[in-house]
Amino acid sequence: MSNDKYINPELPGGFRDYLPENMIVRQAMCDKIRGVFERFGFLPLDTPGIEKTEVLTGGDANFRMHMFNVSLNGEDEDLALRFDLTVPLARVMSQYSEQLQKPFKRYQMGKVWRGERSQAGRFKEFMQFDADIVGSARISADAEIVALMYEVMTTLGLKDFIIKINNRKILNGLSDFVGYEKDLNTNVLRIMDKMDKIGWSGVEKELVEAIKLNKEQLKKIKEFLDIGSDFKKAYELMEGSTEAKEGLDELKEMIDNIKSLGVPEKYYKIDFSVARGLGYYTGPVFETTLTDLPAIGSVMSGGRYDDLVTRFSAQNLPAVGTSVGVDRLFVAMEKLGLIKKSKTLVKAVVLNFDKGAEDYCQKIVAELRKNGIASEIYLGKEENIKGQLAYALIQEIPVVLIAGEKEKEAKTVQIKNIVTRTQTEVQFKD
Amino acid sequence: MSNDKYINPELPGGFRDYLPENMIVRQAMCDKIRGVFERFGFLPLDTPGIEKTEVLTGGDANFRMHMFNVSLNGEDEDLALRFDLTVPLARVMSQYSEQLQKPFKRYQMGKVWRGERSQAGRFKEFMQFDADIVGSARISADAEIVALMYEVMTTLGLKDFIIKINNRKILNGLSDFVGYEKDLNTNVLRIMDKMDKIGWSGVEKELVEAIKLNKEQLKKIKEFLDIGSDFKKAYELMEGSTEAKEGLDELKEMIDNIKSLGVPEKYYKIDFSVARGLGYYTGPVFETTLTDLPAIGSVMSGGRYDDLVTRFSAQNLPAVGTSVGVDRLFVAMEKLGLIKKSKTLVKAVVLNFDKGAEDYCQKIVAELRKNGIASEIYLGKEENIKGQLAYALIQEIPVVLIAGEKEKEAKTVQIKNIVTRTQTEVQFKD
Repeated sequence: MSNDKYINPELPGGFRDYLPENMIVRQAMCDKIRGVFERFGFLPLDTPGIEKTEVLTGGDANFRMHMFNVSLNGEDEDLALRFDLTVPLARVMSQYSEQLQKPFKRYQMGKVWRGERSQAGRFKEFMQFDADIVGSARISADAEIVALMYEVMTTLGLKDFIIKINNRKILNGLSDFVGYEKDLNTNVLRIMDKMDKIGWSGVEKELVEAIKLNKEQLKKIKEFLDIGSDFKKAYELMEGSTEAKEGLDELKEMIDNIKSLGVPEKYYKIDFSVARGLGYYTGPVFETTLTDLPAIGSVMSGGRYDDLVTRFSAQNLPAVGTSVGVDRLFVAMEKLGLIKKSKTLVKAVVLNFDKGAEDYCQKIVAELRKNGIASEIYLGKEENIKGQLAYALIQEIPVVLIAGEKEKEAKTVQIKNIVTRTQTEVQFKD
Repeated sequence: MSNDKYINPELPGGFRDYLPENMIVRQAMCDKIRGVFERFGFLPLDTPGIEKTEVLTGGDANFRMHMFNVSLNGEDEDLALRFDLTVPLARVMSQYSEQLQKPFKRYQMGKVWRGERSQAGRFKEFMQFDADIVGSARISADAEIVALMYEVMTTLGLKDFIIKINNRKILNGLSDFVGYEKDLNTNVLRIMDKMDKIGWSGVEKELVEAIKLNKEQLKKIKEFLDIGSDFKKAYELMEGSTEAKEGLDELKEMIDNIKSLGVPEKYYKIDFSVARGLGYYTGPVFETTLTDLPAIGSVMSGGRYDDLVTRFSAQNLPAVGTSVGVDRLFVAMEKLGLIKKSKTLVKAVVLNFDKGAEDYCQKIVAELRKNGIASEIYLGKEENIKGQLAYALIQEIPVVLIAGEKEKEAKTVQIKNIVTRTQTEVQFKD
């Protein structure tokens, strides 16, 4: 440690701390989400932050640029920090395939790291909270995930949101319907996915520039996007594609399931433009937008990905799941005024101003804690009641207990309620 | 993704997964610890896993070898994974020094990484759970930490443990008492610290070999270690050292405080051999050993370190805290048979064998969840009751609900209790 120069106490760019005021809220959010996940029968899993690089990339060298590489002096293993919780889940399913009963319903909460250049509000380390059902191809499993998403959102106190639902199989049939090469599909979908942000005129422009679609083709894309939730129209339009029809059948059955699971109709809708960026979705896809804050994007999304473990084995393991962006949701709820910050969890502080009564004060705080009351005894520098009261006020601790030698002798204690501004004297035993 | 060769689904050496069976228990442990920390008035803090290397090392180049370095292609910032939660706390205290009210009582739970060669039971990534009081030099703060340690241990269900207490200032006076050069003290203490493991004969041998102590000096060391909890004897022996006397005074006051805080005497004792390896302790030190499992070492330790922020500023910020080795404690409690593993948190599963009644089954599971019962609807491959029942049995789910089209029509449901082996039919509304 060099004494001639101090080290700057700071974080690298793109990282942040959660001081108590924010952490209390974030933790309460996570507790609620966990409660919902457990009520839905998901079990907790934990995996390390560090994995072998090839496990994470699946052998794809291009992936590496978004990952943090990890190294230890003197060892040359190729290691990296996980960038999501899905790849570790796939590894777990393969590694313990005989041991784990299927369907395997797990939830996992943990940090993930992505080395993208940090934009405003984008961080390089963030908390992810996932729930997945592995080993079930049933449509009712897809519906469970949507019901779970609805329950998480309402449990967090959100009322104005909509879960948009689509099925990738329908989108796969788009090239047949519109009439372009199948391998252009990913690009077309990527552009259509921007509908929320750039509107039809923006989408149209990009489709002309990047894909060279003609007027007739653009008309068909517009027609497709205009279907809304009209299944009959969708079946009519897409009848040329077997895959699209299969997707529509699945979607229809899923909607029925969602209803049976008790999700109110106003909280979900079919949206044929939803594609979800990630390549690995193979069936239903979901995303959740906040009605009053569409620009923030999806706060909870997911879908079915039946190719989960293909990098590890020939096994066919269907899976469907969802991921809550806790940090993004935190930012959103803060903007919407849905977050009530509190500086403390402490309900009572026992002042500590009279050395002769300190033992008595310690007995009082021990008694409070025994009764489940989050409490502390004042441990700071202030020596008199006034200074110690100021601490309680700044920390927003609602109740202050005061006892000096007089109270110690009488076995009483003064209780001051800072909120109601009342003071009463009670016996120690009460 | 290469299709011609599968990737091996495995973790790097020294890392491990927590599958649900273990994670359910570990999470329950963490919940209990958190409950105690909050009851004692500690507030949650979260900091990133990645920090600037110089923040972690304090500029000490030798530290680096135990750390995982982190790098991002194209960026050359010097980053590393944190190896404890204390250094990040020191950074936070310096970085937000104006914003944070003192004393600052925070707890933090998180992963830390240490790149030491993995021995049996030693992992390179592990969970740490710390509570610290920063900005209080009061002896009652030291006592609070001991009371907290006691409460954590008993809340976890442990009954046979002892918190050993000492004060570094007493140990600092040892060189005066025994008569050797002051700068040999660290080495002498390091050897004495092995008393539990190698006994007096081992300690004696090492003191002769490494420090070249003579017979007279060894006799004095032995005398010191034999003091036990006898304060009078300690004062007599150490009267030549002002610092040792100060340490004894502090220790005595702390013991009184611990009593007032309600910690039963059988759970703590003075042990003048306890030094705690880490160099940064400056006053009281604590460690907790399990009576029936001494070899596993301390499962919860701590102490006072008043030089916390010296690497960041000239500020003097006294601190005292403790750290629970959750993973080590988990292993210990497992060995002691104190851990009751359960495969699931799910209380009820609704079978799903009759396509015509699936919607009814979904209504049932939604109703159970609405009543706070962790439950699931069967989503696996088995199509008949028998196969689905087998799933419930293997997963150890205590209650099974059965409803086909007959029950759907009658609005009833069969409830099978797997534990008591009883089956009853009830109305849906019940």
